[in-house]
Amino acid sequence: MTASDPAVTGAPMRRSIKAFPYNAETRLESLETTLTPPGRHYVRSNFAVPDLSPESYRLVVAGAVHAAVTFDLAALRALPSHALAVTMECAGNDRLGMRPVPAGEPWASGAVGTAVWGGVRLRDVLAAAGVRADACELVVTGADRGPRDDARTPGDVSFARGLPLEVAMHEDTLLALSMHGAPLPAEHGAPVRLIVPGWYGMASVKWVTSLQLVSEPFTGYFQRDRYVYDVAGEVRPVTRMLVKSMITAPAEGADLTFGPVEVHGWAWSGSGPIERVEFSGDGTSWQDATLGEPASAHAWTPWTCLWRPEHAGRAVLQSRATDATGATQPDAIVWNRLGYGNNAVRPVVVDVCAAS
Amino acid sequence: MTASDPAVTGAPMRRSIKAFPYNAETRLESLETTLTPPGRHYVRSNFAVPDLSPESYRLVVAGAVHAAVTFDLAALRALPSHALAVTMECAGNDRLGMRPVPAGEPWASGAVGTAVWGGVRLRDVLAAAGVRADACELVVTGADRGPRDDARTPGDVSFARGLPLEVAMHEDTLLALSMHGAPLPAEHGAPVRLIVPGWYGMASVKWVTSLQLVSEPFTGYFQRDRYVYDVAGEVRPVTRMLVKSMITAPAEGADLTFGPVEVHGWAWSGSGPIERVEFSGDGTSWQDATLGEPASAHAWTPWTCLWRPEHAGRAVLQSRATDATGATQPDAIVWNRLGYGNNAVRPVVVDVCAAS
Repeated sequence: MTASDPAVTGAPMRRSIKAFPYNAETRLESLETTLTPPGRHYVRSNFAVPDLSPESYRLVVAGAVHAAVTFDLAALRALPSHALAVTMECAGNDRLGMRPVPAGEPWASGAVGTAVWGGVRLRDVLAAAGVRADACELVVTGADRGPRDDARTPGDVSFARGLPLEVAMHEDTLLALSMHGAPLPAEHGAPVRLIVPGWYGMASVKWVTSLQLVSEPFTGYFQRDRYVYDVAGEVRPVTRMLVKSMITAPAEGADLTFGPVEVHGWAWSGSGPIERVEFSGDGTSWQDATLGEPASAHAWTPWTCLWRPEHAGRAVLQSRATDATGATQPDAIVWNRLGYGNNAVRPVVVDVCAAS
Repeated sequence: MTASDPAVTGAPMRRSIKAFPYNAETRLESLETTLTPPGRHYVRSNFAVPDLSPESYRLVVAGAVHAAVTFDLAALRALPSHALAVTMECAGNDRLGMRPVPAGEPWASGAVGTAVWGGVRLRDVLAAAGVRADACELVVTGADRGPRDDARTPGDVSFARGLPLEVAMHEDTLLALSMHGAPLPAEHGAPVRLIVPGWYGMASVKWVTSLQLVSEPFTGYFQRDRYVYDVAGEVRPVTRMLVKSMITAPAEGADLTFGPVEVHGWAWSGSGPIERVEFSGDGTSWQDATLGEPASAHAWTPWTCLWRPEHAGRAVLQSRATDATGATQPDAIVWNRLGYGNNAVRPVVVDVCAAS
């Protein structure tokens, strides 16, 4: 804990975006640690938290399966358990950096975090029903639902997402029952939440009650009308997290004493390990940062760098990550109508004070 | 003065961008007043402040004139005096909003201000020499000079700018000898500074020592290599201030109590009076702000608006000005290599706290 820690200052643990439905992002000072505590991890909700009692909870596996199966919590818990540290970013993180600011929740840079999710493999649950050969996709539906003005069909919309079968069957795709070893909090999807490592958060459906195997691609509201990159009407689905990095220290607006400054932060990508992070304090010369070990193959990579300012005054700090596929963060923001996937280099402005 | 006023808190009066050459911008809380005091008005310098003693100071008017003339300060002061409130913005103001961040001084939003400049009409000075019919432009040179790595010619570069003759001859174009009724401070161009109302600050040459009438357009470093909009190699000169507005209250990051909020700010344009300012608290619905009276035809127009938030949570406040030519601020930033003329709508993010 630092002097600016909410636990010390009494400030709210998260920055609220909207009270209802509840959306809140992590304070940047709470992103200094490898794991983000549940009370500080960002929360993105499209509707009210559904009222699911552990006793009456049921998960139905149906559709293109050999035999539909219903699990209660005890049946889920009876499956082999797995836990994994996963960095999850909201597809709308850094939407506020875009110009014009797209509609949608105005996330700054705190809609990302890392948690240890514990539960069972999704494929073990699917295996109990037996996936038929004609299944191409898994539709995962949460218990959260509500009206949407721009829905294509009348009535309430459920939060539901289609997941490619090979992603659903991956050994690291989990149905989480716990977070950091404690029961999953309601706001994070209790009692059961899907965790799709490497994908933006919308894939990790909360309050999961239905797994439906389908033989045609899913076209629901949150698949076709939201979580798509819409550039001049050309639409592509949002899937894996784009390669990205962030500077966690020094903080925006920090007053630094002239001399070497330790800069550090995180880098992550949904497409493979981070291979390189470059840092610049002047926008012209870039140096390689030192990479640390991530907590898992799906967790962010820590990086650190010693920066020696050349003169006192305002400085623009920037970091740029490259992943194992060779993908690098862009310098310019790729604007899209709904404001997803802003992985551009994000400047952090600090003041270096002359030595007195 | 408010509780956050630097005079109260002991904070520096300006935010330093660079100590040498001295560049500093106005703190946003010091932009609440119609006139910006000299110690708080932004300062942009390309080189060190030249050492000009009032006694030895001379202003030479030469080139395409009938008879070259030299003025000392007494001769200048003998001309009819005029004073005018002028809003001046640095062409690089809000450069930090651009992505990627262009090279150049990293100005946030405080490189704008309004001062009452007192002095003599430039045209009265030119008339003393007699402008010849073949003159097309006035080259105004300051005493500040220094090396530039990317200059086209060897040796030091002087700060010099070409001004179209009709602008030079305009009755509101002044050679300023005072600021807010007091002697011009050295950092603002003492003893004599040009003031070109409506143009970005680079036209208002400081420490003026030479007025040279020319019959061919000027092609100096600060005319051709700087202060140009460079988009993919297509180059246009930076001239008049583009229509723009800013929100001065509430401030970025403010915690507001749920209920009506008075929003206010400034709007200005180098091309004519402000005709309209629109405000939005949600990016979707816009309302007309109420315009006040500017201090002069060349000073910013105050505006105010009562905003009623619809719900608690984070809100993105935006204002959009339109001038008498019909020009309106764009929603998207028009990026250019050197980062000039960012007049896009600039969001101010605030938090509306639910009533307890």
